[in-house]
Amino acid sequence: MDMVYMMDLIGCGVFAISGAIMAYKRKMDGVGVLVLAAVTAIGGGTVRDLLLDAPVFWLTQPNYIYVIITASILAIIWLNYSEKIPEKALEIADAIGLALFVVMGTSKALSYGVSDVTAIILGMMTGCFGGMIRDVLANEVPMILQKELYAMCCIVGASLYVLIIPFHHDLAIGSAFSAVLLLRLAAIKWKWQMYVFKY
Amino acid sequence: MDMVYMMDLIGCGVFAISGAIMAYKRKMDGVGVLVLAAVTAIGGGTVRDLLLDAPVFWLTQPNYIYVIITASILAIIWLNYSEKIPEKALEIADAIGLALFVVMGTSKALSYGVSDVTAIILGMMTGCFGGMIRDVLANEVPMILQKELYAMCCIVGASLYVLIIPFHHDLAIGSAFSAVLLLRLAAIKWKWQMYVFKY
Amino acid sequence: MDMVYMMDLIGCGVFAISGAIMAYKRKMDGVGVLVLAAVTAIGGGTVRDLLLDAPVFWLTQPNYIYVIITASILAIIWLNYSEKIPEKALEIADAIGLALFVVMGTSKALSYGVSDVTAIILGMMTGCFGGMIRDVLANEVPMILQKELYAMCCIVGASLYVLIIPFHHDLAIGSAFSAVLLLRLAAIKWKWQMYVFKY
Repeated sequence: MDMVYMMDLIGCGVFAISGAIMAYKRKMDGVGVLVLAAVTAIGGGTVRDLLLDAPVFWLTQPNYIYVIITASILAIIWLNYSEKIPEKALEIADAIGLALFVVMGTSKALSYGVSDVTAIILGMMTGCFGGMIRDVLANEVPMILQKELYAMCCIVGASLYVLIIPFHHDLAIGSAFSAVLLLRLAAIKWKWQMYVFKY
Repeated sequence: MDMVYMMDLIGCGVFAISGAIMAYKRKMDGVGVLVLAAVTAIGGGTVRDLLLDAPVFWLTQPNYIYVIITASILAIIWLNYSEKIPEKALEIADAIGLALFVVMGTSKALSYGVSDVTAIILGMMTGCFGGMIRDVLANEVPMILQKELYAMCCIVGASLYVLIIPFHHDLAIGSAFSAVLLLRLAAIKWKWQMYVFKY
Repeated sequence: MDMVYMMDLIGCGVFAISGAIMAYKRKMDGVGVLVLAAVTAIGGGTVRDLLLDAPVFWLTQPNYIYVIITASILAIIWLNYSEKIPEKALEIADAIGLALFVVMGTSKALSYGVSDVTAIILGMMTGCFGGMIRDVLANEVPMILQKELYAMCCIVGASLYVLIIPFHHDLAIGSAFSAVLLLRLAAIKWKWQMYVFKY
């Protein structure tokens, strides 16, 4: 199993946990947990693959499904034995998952020969759209539309990847991953916002 | 017209009625009724076909559209001449439609050569996702995420189909259909739930 | 740049502005504005292309993205320097965009060889589904399901197109465009509704 695939599975597990926690907050049952964990984990990549007309990645790779089931069970056990949701740890895990997904998504889009701008958008969608669908299903205004530069971190990271990849493969991956991760953590820590309207 | 296609159209009509009733509850106009009836009836199969990269079934079969329009008109007439929504009859009709769709969806997914786990998921999606989109459009938390084992019945039925189909074709269809139908009716009657969290 | 493509870009810009204004009403940040503008502008056409298994139009045409970004920036500047949203002007602009999208969508669907009924539905979806996704993301019951014949105007226009196109190309475009535009403006002015239920 290669490094990139490994990282993708890790990102998938982290996102599945964030979906399971949303199901817990909404007092859903066991199936609700699984469905919400799944759409959060593979929703973004699914939208990307549909748009690219690529084979949807998890159809041929049941491993993603097993990771989601395992992550959901772990989340259920944790939430039943502990009273508290470890918000801090989750935010960091989510930022790591986000950074992994953006790099993967941008790279896959480029490999299908789309333009740079399109690749950046598809990279952002890979990272953000799973959480967006999760929030829509939970009947909330999606977090990515209003909170702490969520989508903006993805756009910066994906742009770095697109800029550097013609020159150096590993540097592109490293800097895109770091940019998303650090920007996102900084945005959480200092509550960065990017308001464009005076209210 | 063969048996399976006939059953699919019946399931489609039943689901369309459930969509039209949701539109009635939300005080929508005539177009709202048609759109909600349509997404409930063909939403699940559409998502399945998009994921499989199969031709979307209703594009080439306008019969589905005619069934939806007819069912919507019948629902409108009924709701205008009767004060009461026949909840009981609807739940049974919905369970029959669900069972039909799960069998159809799992079978179609297998015919595209996906793995067993994937076929079970796509069978479940065929049955559940139409209603899920209906609930999202009506601005509600989807019923399948919280009520009476809705998705779980589909998963059990689809699993039976996948297990039995290598040995006996008719037995696989019969047992999957019966499993979804009976489990769903039992879940409604005895208000089964599958809570995984202590609150 | 040909006429049709030009008209499509204009419709896209108009719809992007309506998305940006929804983001403003929901107090979203800069990224929320961009995402909501984008789904409104290209959501309908994207769903159409996915259903037709056609290449998604904006993947290969970054011009659509540039139009969306420009329209979003203009909307942000306007909303910051003026206290008032020009509701009237927007409704007219939206009706023009709608008419353009319905003609484009129906025509593209027919060029993929689908039946007339399907082409009418896909034309309606091209016009309406972007706004529907916008409303779902903003956590509202979609306007098209309840207001002023929105989808019905599209269905009438698309039907005219399908009826006339075998006889005369320009007449089909002209009458479909005029039908959507005039019906929509009349529906707004005289508050037409198409209630099918007595409440």
